[in-house]
Amino acid sequence: MKSYKDLSKEELLQLQAALEAEYEDAKSKGLNLDMSRGKPAASQFDMEMDIMDVLNSSSDYKTAAGMDCRNYGLVDGIPEAKKLMADMMGVANADNVIVCGNASLSIMYDTISRSMTHGVLGSTPWCKLGKVKFLCPAPGYDRHFSVTEHFGIEMITVPMTPQGPDMDIVEKLVSEDEAVKGIWCVPKYSNPQGYSYSEETVKRFAALKPAAKDFRIFWDNAYVVHHLYEEKQDHILDILAECEKAGNPHIVYEFCSTSKVSFAGAGIAAIASSKENLDDMRKSMTMQTIGYDKINQLRHVRYFKDFDGIEAHMKKHAQIIRPKFEAVLKVLECELSGLEIAQWTEPKGGYFISFEALNGCAKKIVAKCKEAGVVLTGAGATFPYGKDPGDSNIRLAPTFPTPEELRAATDLFVLCVKLVSVEMLLAQQA
Amino acid sequence: MKSYKDLSKEELLQLQAALEAEYEDAKSKGLNLDMSRGKPAASQFDMEMDIMDVLNSSSDYKTAAGMDCRNYGLVDGIPEAKKLMADMMGVANADNVIVCGNASLSIMYDTISRSMTHGVLGSTPWCKLGKVKFLCPAPGYDRHFSVTEHFGIEMITVPMTPQGPDMDIVEKLVSEDEAVKGIWCVPKYSNPQGYSYSEETVKRFAALKPAAKDFRIFWDNAYVVHHLYEEKQDHILDILAECEKAGNPHIVYEFCSTSKVSFAGAGIAAIASSKENLDDMRKSMTMQTIGYDKINQLRHVRYFKDFDGIEAHMKKHAQIIRPKFEAVLKVLECELSGLEIAQWTEPKGGYFISFEALNGCAKKIVAKCKEAGVVLTGAGATFPYGKDPGDSNIRLAPTFPTPEELRAATDLFVLCVKLVSVEMLLAQQA
Repeated sequence: MKSYKDLSKEELLQLQAALEAEYEDAKSKGLNLDMSRGKPAASQFDMEMDIMDVLNSSSDYKTAAGMDCRNYGLVDGIPEAKKLMADMMGVANADNVIVCGNASLSIMYDTISRSMTHGVLGSTPWCKLGKVKFLCPAPGYDRHFSVTEHFGIEMITVPMTPQGPDMDIVEKLVSEDEAVKGIWCVPKYSNPQGYSYSEETVKRFAALKPAAKDFRIFWDNAYVVHHLYEEKQDHILDILAECEKAGNPHIVYEFCSTSKVSFAGAGIAAIASSKENLDDMRKSMTMQTIGYDKINQLRHVRYFKDFDGIEAHMKKHAQIIRPKFEAVLKVLECELSGLEIAQWTEPKGGYFISFEALNGCAKKIVAKCKEAGVVLTGAGATFPYGKDPGDSNIRLAPTFPTPEELRAATDLFVLCVKLVSVEMLLAQQA
Repeated sequence: MKSYKDLSKEELLQLQAALEAEYEDAKSKGLNLDMSRGKPAASQFDMEMDIMDVLNSSSDYKTAAGMDCRNYGLVDGIPEAKKLMADMMGVANADNVIVCGNASLSIMYDTISRSMTHGVLGSTPWCKLGKVKFLCPAPGYDRHFSVTEHFGIEMITVPMTPQGPDMDIVEKLVSEDEAVKGIWCVPKYSNPQGYSYSEETVKRFAALKPAAKDFRIFWDNAYVVHHLYEEKQDHILDILAECEKAGNPHIVYEFCSTSKVSFAGAGIAAIASSKENLDDMRKSMTMQTIGYDKINQLRHVRYFKDFDGIEAHMKKHAQIIRPKFEAVLKVLECELSGLEIAQWTEPKGGYFISFEALNGCAKKIVAKCKEAGVVLTGAGATFPYGKDPGDSNIRLAPTFPTPEELRAATDLFVLCVKLVSVEMLLAQQA
């Protein structure tokens, strides 16, 4: 296809008229579709409902060590669940894991909240400091940015590359500024690009020399087993082992959950870190709770049994999700390639596709889609403070809609991309 | 029986010798019993296991309004669960309720943590203030005191009476000192006494005129439906309605959970308060989580159906617990009454009996019990900072042991009370 950039003004005006007619036609269809969040589809839950049968009124509710999971106790998780989540994260020793409630986001929030009120391994509580900063590789996960903003932490954007955050910048900021206390990372199948950090990136993270002793890497391994393909999968290094080797054992907190493995909101979540960091956390945890939901931990252990069970299960999720990603990517490829008005990632896992429109077009594209009944993630959401400096990034979330809905939504999306791009090119010619 | 106080030195020495022989005999039995915590017994869970069958692989997981409980969303709880918990607390409007995860303690902790970092309805965050104080009616619940201590909040002990905290003192401290930001209350079947606040007490709470605008009553209605008897039950006024009437709608947070209704650690928990307070809380909640475990909320709604269902269910719990309380009370009555060395409460509900030994004896009694294999709640635990000024209060928790274990444990307990009391009286004569 001919690049839009090579079109004359007259050609662009003709194209605009045709696209506008097409858009009016699309609007009249009265679509009501949601591609905004990384939500699993009902069909994913439907295929795993037997998890709800593994515990019933005649089940045994004891752990292997004899703890009754129906009663109080074991604040940091049942041993079997620690092992399962350690294996899922690729962490060698289950003692480096605490299993909590249903959401890794809550563990991250609580970790920051605890650092604000109690500091980190004896450091000054962050709420007593004049300024606290976090590095935010972007485009990134909007909820990470919301948590830091909620606590009044200053966010510094770091550019993302297909190998991970720009480590030259990370190293410089972390080593020079004592106010920099953390960095958000989604190291595997990143949100929203689907990038996985290279070996070099992980090693450079492990070898960071922070100016602040209470600097921590927030390693949100949200998509650790969320492959789309059996044959082509990304593998990343075990960050805990690398930090240990680099003489930096306390520098990282790793998070993960089964929210997109079992149920979104009724799974189990875990944190992995050094014993010292976990002990520090346990001091607050034993005040905050008598224990998390051990029955749900036991349900997950009995259902998945071990890491092989999780991997086999995730292949079933991939069978449902992969065709959706492929459908979206096919429409993008057929409709947009060669036009020089967009780029997008082709992830091997995770829940998102990152889409780059022409500068200044993202907000308008999202608004046009909404006007015609398709809700996308708000433009800017993938950047700190909701501000995308180029106004170009759009996060596409293909998992929740049905395949039919997805086709309709993506058709509308590419139409809006074309229309807004033509408008932009015309404005530039004027 | 003859009062120990009327015994001569010689009689006391003879008694001591006899009790010591009895104690050596008891030690040789090698008991290993736990009366330390308010834990339900396995038999309580055994009778309610059908709760685990109400949701299975063929169930419908939609709320009445059509929300799929297996997916993300509804951060403040499913409407049906709000209604159930509102009815349980006796709160008129379910809009005044948020249903969270498995533990009301976590809601209390998070509420204090949020006040530290973000203030209350726009007030200065407590971590920015020089001094924050909480009133602690005592003897009281040790975990309340631990949370406040963890956040560096100064605790002021307020005496308890059978009608509730000494309200003259509460009113004075709350109205005079702007640093007083809260008070802990267990208004019904209090921990550890089993006292229920009188109508006058509740009304005086509702009418408080705090110096601090961000003062809040932490109304932990932990034992709201935990009656021991059908015929004699305590009823307390609805604090939310009373505060509203008194023109103080924002002054209270009420907490409750099903930890001792369904499963300890796998129940559901809720907070009730004014819309403004709940909106303030929702601002942080939407950062902290995408949602709590809605499947477990749905499970509880489907099982109990309504408040009548909860009340009927609690009668079954009472049938198991009541004989345990009666067994302990009978031993105390038979063995200690008339000796003038102890007093104790006779609760109509809740999970504890509060025991008052002679001043200076509690620690020694608990230590003697432990030496012979019976673990009690640590002496002092029922007071702020773990310091009982009289060293006299001991919390007895009769629910967890089996009836046989309970008899053995209580026999040993009264033996230790007698022995330590005799030692104390001899020392006083010396």
